[in-house]
Amino acid sequence: MAIVFYDLVGRDGRNFSPYCWRTRMALAHKGLDYEHRPTAFTAIAAVGGTDNLTVPIIVDDGRMIGDSNRIADYLEAQYPDRPSLFGGETGRALCTFVHSWTNAVVHPGVARSVVDDIFGHVCDEDRDYFRASREKIFGRSLAEVQAGREDRLEAYRADLYPLRLTLRGQAFLGGEAPMYADYIVFGALQWARTISAFRLLADDDPIFAWFQRCGELFDGLGRKAPGYY
Amino acid sequence: MAIVFYDLVGRDGRNFSPYCWRTRMALAHKGLDYEHRPTAFTAIAAVGGTDNLTVPIIVDDGRMIGDSNRIADYLEAQYPDRPSLFGGETGRALCTFVHSWTNAVVHPGVARSVVDDIFGHVCDEDRDYFRASREKIFGRSLAEVQAGREDRLEAYRADLYPLRLTLRGQAFLGGEAPMYADYIVFGALQWARTISAFRLLADDDPIFAWFQRCGELFDGLGRKAPGYY
Repeated sequence: MAIVFYDLVGRDGRNFSPYCWRTRMALAHKGLDYEHRPTAFTAIAAVGGTDNLTVPIIVDDGRMIGDSNRIADYLEAQYPDRPSLFGGETGRALCTFVHSWTNAVVHPGVARSVVDDIFGHVCDEDRDYFRASREKIFGRSLAEVQAGREDRLEAYRADLYPLRLTLRGQAFLGGEAPMYADYIVFGALQWARTISAFRLLADDDPIFAWFQRCGELFDGLGRKAPGYY
Repeated sequence: MAIVFYDLVGRDGRNFSPYCWRTRMALAHKGLDYEHRPTAFTAIAAVGGTDNLTVPIIVDDGRMIGDSNRIADYLEAQYPDRPSLFGGETGRALCTFVHSWTNAVVHPGVARSVVDDIFGHVCDEDRDYFRASREKIFGRSLAEVQAGREDRLEAYRADLYPLRLTLRGQAFLGGEAPMYADYIVFGALQWARTISAFRLLADDDPIFAWFQRCGELFDGLGRKAPGYY
């Protein structure tokens, strides 16, 4: 029985969650079939109950696993004969640093740049929840959070310099081939691409070239997903 | 014949170069004996000629290798039966990201906080070279660069958040055991410790606890080196 994958969805079938993209790329990396179940924010509780309040959630052979990191660890342990997500224990440990950097540096910049655009794409039944929960986090209206994004762009691109420097010398964070660290960062930029025409990266940025390489993986899984560029 | 290791030295035999500390920890990690040759800035040319303008430099079995990254790759390839520095190709590739982050985020903050203190510790014959070369880089006097470091401290500590977040959940960047990524960041903080009483990290910072753990490795190699704390 194929794995069931609960993935966040917006209007028009748009999948934009950065964490769900980590899982989607991980499932593809492992070459695992899955039944794709697009799930609105307000439909997650009916799936995950009180144990799993967010997607991604997968159900494999009757086991429900939530949280993208836990899912990656589960897939690596459960399917050791498939291509490795981490390339060993050291790769797994260093992925935690990439995860921490992505969540601390990459995600906040995406969120502040496109949060009002996200609001414009969430399912109708999610609009009240999304606006209220995000305005509470930011303490301002979503339009106010997003305003001035052009002025913040240069500083944001500078913050991504460690990634740019790395990708000047190698095709992927994982070296010649992609691994889970690539999917962690890819998810953040795919989040932006799927939801907003606002370009975080310049065309000639090595990070953008890498993002496009990631989008071509697995028969263009990332590129073919509805997005703005 | 033991490896010869040319290591930067200041007055009173103080070894402070962050890149040399990467190499020193890597040699210890591999369990390799080496002849330690403390080398002043202005003595490097006589060792490395025009091919190797900086230390660390090692000479192993008649081969001279410079640049800390090249040295780490050489040691890993030449001594595969010793404990691995990278834990495989993926670990090697992800080390490049840690290197890029360290050089882009950790090093500039150290340099701006202690550069005048470094000047106070370099060998007498290095003073003119050091001051002239660093003032050219910064475009200001060393005292001016360092001034205001207390005011920059909070922002600098915030910049280290991705490392802090990682070390809340694991003992080393490499997981349960240290690897070359740990030595990359350790070198930066050891640079500060050996040269300045100015504390970049709070006592209760998980990064400081990790720094002390690294200092205890290899019979206290880092901790026993002359330093301010």
